[in-house]
Formats: sequence, C-alpha cells, structure tokens
Amino acid sequence: MLNVDLSAISDFVSGQQMAAMEPRVAAAYETLATGSGAGNDYIGWVNLPRDYDREEFARIQAAAKRIQSDSEALVVIGIGGSYLGARAVIELLKSPNYNLKKKDTPDIFFAGNTLSTDMVLEIMELVGDRDFSINVISKSGTTTEPAVAFRLFKAKLEEKYGKAEAAKRIYATTDKAKGALKSLADVEGYEEFVVPDDVGGRYSVLTAVGLLPIAVAGIDIEALMAGAEEARVAFQSDRSMNNPVWKYVAARNALYEQGKKVELLCCYEPSFRFMSEWWKQLYGESEGKDGKGLFPASVEFTADLHSMGQYIQQGERIMFETVVRYDQPHGEILIGADKDNVDGLNFLAGKPLSFVAEQALRGTRLAHVDGGVPNILVELETVNETTLGQLIYFFELACGISGYVLGVNPFNQPGVEAYKKNMFALLNKPGYEELRETLLARL
Amino acid sequence: MLNVDLSAISDFVSGQQMAAMEPRVAAAYETLATGSGAGNDYIGWVNLPRDYDREEFARIQAAAKRIQSDSEALVVIGIGGSYLGARAVIELLKSPNYNLKKKDTPDIFFAGNTLSTDMVLEIMELVGDRDFSINVISKSGTTTEPAVAFRLFKAKLEEKYGKAEAAKRIYATTDKAKGALKSLADVEGYEEFVVPDDVGGRYSVLTAVGLLPIAVAGIDIEALMAGAEEARVAFQSDRSMNNPVWKYVAARNALYEQGKKVELLCCYEPSFRFMSEWWKQLYGESEGKDGKGLFPASVEFTADLHSMGQYIQQGERIMFETVVRYDQPHGEILIGADKDNVDGLNFLAGKPLSFVAEQALRGTRLAHVDGGVPNILVELETVNETTLGQLIYFFELACGISGYVLGVNPFNQPGVEAYKKNMFALLNKPGYEELRETLLARL
Repeated sequence: MLNVDLSAISDFVSGQQMAAMEPRVAAAYETLATGSGAGNDYIGWVNLPRDYDREEFARIQAAAKRIQSDSEALVVIGIGGSYLGARAVIELLKSPNYNLKKKDTPDIFFAGNTLSTDMVLEIMELVGDRDFSINVISKSGTTTEPAVAFRLFKAKLEEKYGKAEAAKRIYATTDKAKGALKSLADVEGYEEFVVPDDVGGRYSVLTAVGLLPIAVAGIDIEALMAGAEEARVAFQSDRSMNNPVWKYVAARNALYEQGKKVELLCCYEPSFRFMSEWWKQLYGESEGKDGKGLFPASVEFTADLHSMGQYIQQGERIMFETVVRYDQPHGEILIGADKDNVDGLNFLAGKPLSFVAEQALRGTRLAHVDGGVPNILVELETVNETTLGQLIYFFELACGISGYVLGVNPFNQPGVEAYKKNMFALLNKPGYEELRETLLARL
Repeated sequence: MLNVDLSAISDFVSGQQMAAMEPRVAAAYETLATGSGAGNDYIGWVNLPRDYDREEFARIQAAAKRIQSDSEALVVIGIGGSYLGARAVIELLKSPNYNLKKKDTPDIFFAGNTLSTDMVLEIMELVGDRDFSINVISKSGTTTEPAVAFRLFKAKLEEKYGKAEAAKRIYATTDKAKGALKSLADVEGYEEFVVPDDVGGRYSVLTAVGLLPIAVAGIDIEALMAGAEEARVAFQSDRSMNNPVWKYVAARNALYEQGKKVELLCCYEPSFRFMSEWWKQLYGESEGKDGKGLFPASVEFTADLHSMGQYIQQGERIMFETVVRYDQPHGEILIGADKDNVDGLNFLAGKPLSFVAEQALRGTRLAHVDGGVPNILVELETVNETTLGQLIYFFELACGISGYVLGVNPFNQPGVEAYKKNMFALLNKPGYEELRETLLARL
C-alpha cells in the first residue's frame, strides 16, 4: 500500500506543529465522513469504490469491447474533469505515445477541450476515414467546447455511416435524468452512461466518465476499482497520523500556513505528465477560493531539473515539493562499459538505469531540502492498475479533507462561471444583453 | 511586429510606478547592450540574428536535407536548453501531433532528457527498424541523461549500419574546441555543429542547437532567423517605453515588486505547450536565484479554464497572467445551424470557431482582472516562422534585461549543480567520496 514519507519536512515543520494539525485533520475527516460539511451533496466519490453500479460497470466493459472490435479510433469529447482523468490514466499505464504505438486497441483522441480551430481540424484529419466511435461526456450537453466538437464529429460520423448506424457508435456519458445531451441520447438511442449527481467532475475519473475511455485503451478497470477500494478501506479505517492521507493533509496545510504558497508535484516519469494535470484540477479547483489555497504546479524530472531546477534550488522560497515515486514496471537497461569511456560514464558500468534514476531522486531531495524546499514523498511500489487506483483515491480523499482543514467548500467552483458569463455576453448570447453593454464599454 | 498591451494592468500598477520603472529598464538595457554586467561572457545571443555564422547555417540546411532524404526518423539527444527550443518550435509550427501526422519529413524523437527506463525503451521501439539518424547535442558530452541515451542509440545505429556508415548518420552539436563529444566527433568523423561559447543553453534555440532539428521538420529556418533579426533591429533601436520589450520588463518587475510571485503564461492554442516549457526555463533559470524571481507557470486555455480557472479567479492573489495571442493560421470552422438546437449553440450559427475563441480570450481577460489578476497581453498577428522568430527574440531580450532590473546575473545557473553533486556521490562516482559519506548518514 501507498506510503507517505515526511522525513524531509522536519527541518521546516516542528513535531509540535504537526501534532497541532492532528485534531484539525480528524475533525475535517469527520465532517467529510458524516456528510456534515459544505458541499455535502457532492461526496458520492467517498464510497464509490465500494458502492459503484455493477450493472453499469458491466455495460462499460461491454461497450469498450464493442468499440475495440468495430473502431480504429475513439474520439472522446469532454473538457476539465470530463477528460483529464482518462487521459492521465491512459498516458500513465499505457504511454504518452499511446496513439503512436503498435497495439490492438483503438487510437484515442481527446477532443472538445479547446476552442482552437487548428486542433479540431487536426483531430478530424488524424481520425481520417478510419472506422471510429464517439464518447461524448457532458453533464449538461451545453458546455461550449464539447458541444462544438460534438456537432462536428457527429456530422462526420453520420456522413460516414448514416444516422441510424452512427447512433450505435455514439456513447453518451451524461446526467441520468435531464439536460440537452440526455434528451438527445434518449431520442437518438445512444448508449448512455451516468455522470452521478453527487460526484463533481474533478472527482469523476472512477465513474463512467473516466472508465469507458480507460477500458477502451485496454486497461483493466476492475483492478483499478479494486485498488481504489483497497485504499478506501485502509484510509477510512485508520484515524491517526499513521494514515498516509492524514500525513499528507497535515503536512501540506502546515507548510501552507507557514507561507509556502506553491505546491510542486514532481515525478521522474514523463508518462506522469497528465496525472499532474489531473491533480492540478483536483486541488486547484477544490482549494483555490476565498483568496486561499496552495497554487498547484508540476515538473517532470530529471528533464526539468535542467530548466526549473535552478529556480527550485535558489529562487523565491515560496514552495514545497510533493514527489510521487515508484519503481519502473517494464524493462531494464544495463549501462555497459565502453573501452574509450569518452563520456566518463564507466563508473556506472553494470548498473541499471533505474538505479541512476533512484540516486537522482535521492540526491535531488537532499539538495532541495538544503536549498530550503520541504519535500513530501508519496511512494508506490510500482505502477499498475491496482496501485494507480490507490493513488487516485489517496489524492481524492486527501483533497476533500484538506479543503475542510483550509476552511473552504472543496466541492464547488463558483469562480468558473465568471469567464463564461463574459464570453456569452461578448458572443451576443440572448439573456446577456446588459452585461454585453458593460463589457463593450470596457474594451 | 509584435505588440504588448498593458491596459489590463492599470488597476494594479499606477502610471507613476511604471514611469519609475523606465530609467531602471533603460539602465538594465544599457548594461546588457554594452556588455558591462554580470555574466557578460554569455550575451552572444543578443546580436546573433545579425551575426550568426552563414557557412555553418548553410551546412545545417544541407544536413537537414540529407537527413530528410535518408532517414525516416531523427533521434534528437539533448536535455534542458538542448531540446526545449527545438521541440517548442516544431510543436508550434508543425503540431504537437507531428509524429502522428502523414508528412514527407522524418519523425522526430526527443531522447536524452530523462532517466526513465520505460521512456528510453519506448523511443527505441518507436524508432524500430526504420532508417534513422542521430543529432546529439551536448556542450560537454558528459551530462548523464544525454550521455546514456547516446550510448544506447549509437549502439543501435552501429548495429544497423556498421560503424563507418553510422558515423555519417550522427550529427554532433557541441563545443567548438574541447570536451568529450567534440573529441569523439573528431575521431569518428561525425559532422559537427557548434554550441557557441557565449550563448547559454536556454538562449540557444537560434543556434545549431535548435536549428538542425527544426530544419529537419521542414520549417524555414531562414525565415525564423529573419524574424528574429527584424525583432533585434526594432527592439534595440527604440529606447523608450513604446518598445514592447521595455513594456513587458517594466510591467512584470512592477508587479513582482508589489508581491505578485507567480507569472502564468497563457495561450489558447494547445500547440503552444512546449513554448511555455521553453519560456519557463528561460525565465526560471535566468531569474530564480538569490532567493528572488517570479515563479514561472503555464496554462493552456480554454482547457485549463475548466481546471485551473477556479484558482486563478478566486485563489491566493499571488499571480499575474501573460497571455500570448495570435490569429489561427490554418483552416476555419463555421458553426452551423442545427434544426433542433438541443445544445443551445444556434446563437453562434454562421460564426467561425475562431471568433468564439477570441471572445473567450476577451471575456477571460476581463473576468481575471475583476478577480484581481493583472493581465499582460503579447500579441502577434499570426504564427509563422517570421513572427515566431520575433517572439523568441522578444522573450530572450526581455529576459536578459529583466534579470538586470531584478539585480541578478541572468546568465548563470549555479543552483543546477547541487543535485548533480549529490547524485554523483550517491552513484559512487570517483572524487565524491566525502560527500557520499555525509549524504548516506542523512538518508
């Protein structure tokens, strides 16, 4: 099971400060567990790994098989929480180069997360004239980016297969009862999956929202859920500072209260890049409100030790690092001896590259601590469906508790509407006339 | 020519504060232009777009043609400044999906920027048994990540073609006179290109370091240099606050001095992602020292308005945004009318998607300013080789000047050594025995 090592924050946070955190974390956990806090309509994810809908889960698996058998490409249409989780899991367990690789599962393209004309046209071109299906993911069906993309890809699909056949290739993940996409899916007969009412987008990767694309990529979603369930049992039962979730919550809040404003998520695997993006939404959107919250940022080591490394070592002392560490699961590379040794690497002869990577991590951790950057280490044994399920649940549970420790509602996102309102007004959407006048006067 | 719009910082920085910045920016520019400041051994990039080596430039173009004709893949081996610039330019002008696209230029794989076993093995597999060449980029030839990758890919190349033929497929970009890679290239007869002594890695994209991979991707490097030269002439001649470079330097330093600690680079095109990574190294490594400097972070809108948008709108007020804006160069998508209008998008019927994107930008800018986030707008007319050359020079010149305004040496990176020393000690490298003992005692 996942472990959290706080030894490299001890120069920055005293034992007394950590002890003072314990009752606050306990109280925040209690608030979450009893559903007595702000945003308690949105805590369905807490017990989801135990309580998920088995009938729907089997339909997800069946749909994934069907898509694998009849499609060379799957276009996943969604934005924010409706795409980051699936993309993160697929890149981590398969590869950031998933589409480039030879494989017996379909290419997966994430569309509907941009207003970039070039990017939409490019995905159209990359899908080309191959057989494809669409998974459109939207609670409402009216969010601008996915709605635009869905219009385009649906037209392409209907042109290729005709309306009736196309409808069999469209999988709608949406509200269970209402909304534009739900209505359309009912009328057209799309297969439907549910975005649960009590699970917000950023906590939805283990619902149909994330699971269908993940399963299409050939990832074992039963093992993913089983890993999350193991974590749920473990992290809900231990109400003490031995609980890795409690440790993480206590440490990051103690550091924040000391003036650390930036949490830098670090990993030594390039395939972790979109897990960091998923994590940024989870924490940024849950905690960044009321003028509060750690600013979530990420780096990819060792590459970024040669770019952001200088700043981390000697720049403004406003940050701490959270490092996710695991052994590399796949192959091994042994560094050979070279008779000329021009590059001076022969002192590594006979060593596996993973050993070098591990010393880079240990050396960097010490260097950054010496530079004034506290370091939280989150350790997994390896990365596979089970341990990733644990990691996802770990970050989700810690986020919910941490938001309550911070004193915010970790389950709303009132600030996201501001730009949308302005955009609608500038786009002349009916109902925004007054705001439009105000904005135009400012431009 | 590129423009900087500061209208959306006026609620945060007074005219008086900006006026007070002017003489400081003027003095910093003078320091840079006269080569009288700290790090003045490393300002070869300032006049590089005028003074670059034409003979070498022609060899770069010829080498690119040769690689295009005899290789289906190019493996670029480099880390930090030895890969970020090339990757950024290729992703922006070609595509982040460059390798996935049908094209008449080679696939390009960036290796040597990680210690991840999985990633190295995967690139080996993706290159497969296709014809390929190597561009190894390292001033010294002994940096661990690229040295390891070069050993592996060189062995693969020699196995495939034999040693003599392989040597004709290896292009070494390295020191002009000394170092491990230079010596090896001389002995083996690799074609050589120069990492100039007076241009640090993060300022080197317009040298052979960046230009060879960029040219192989089919990008017009003459136009890129011409754009940079236009910018050099324009930005060096105007010594006033009308100069976009001066505006940017003054604004970001004024905001920093008011307590804004994070600069968030934003773009509305997914293809800009690695330009942001290049920019992070440029600014983070140049300014992040002596406990000072803006923390450079980036977001990709509109996707990240659905993840980091909440934090930006209502989280800690420690940031400002720098938005890079340009018209989309390629196609156009017209939003059609839909008879049922289930998604409610018909109010956009007949409008191009780029119009929607532009209103998202304008609406977001106003929303974020209202939320307390100052906004600097960097505007290009469009994106092509010429305007990108301008943008690169703009950011480089502004960075050099800004570092002097901040009072640091913008051309060194003393903090990067700390982790390397620790890593070498933990790897048992000869000469690090004492440090090894100290570190082991702490672990």
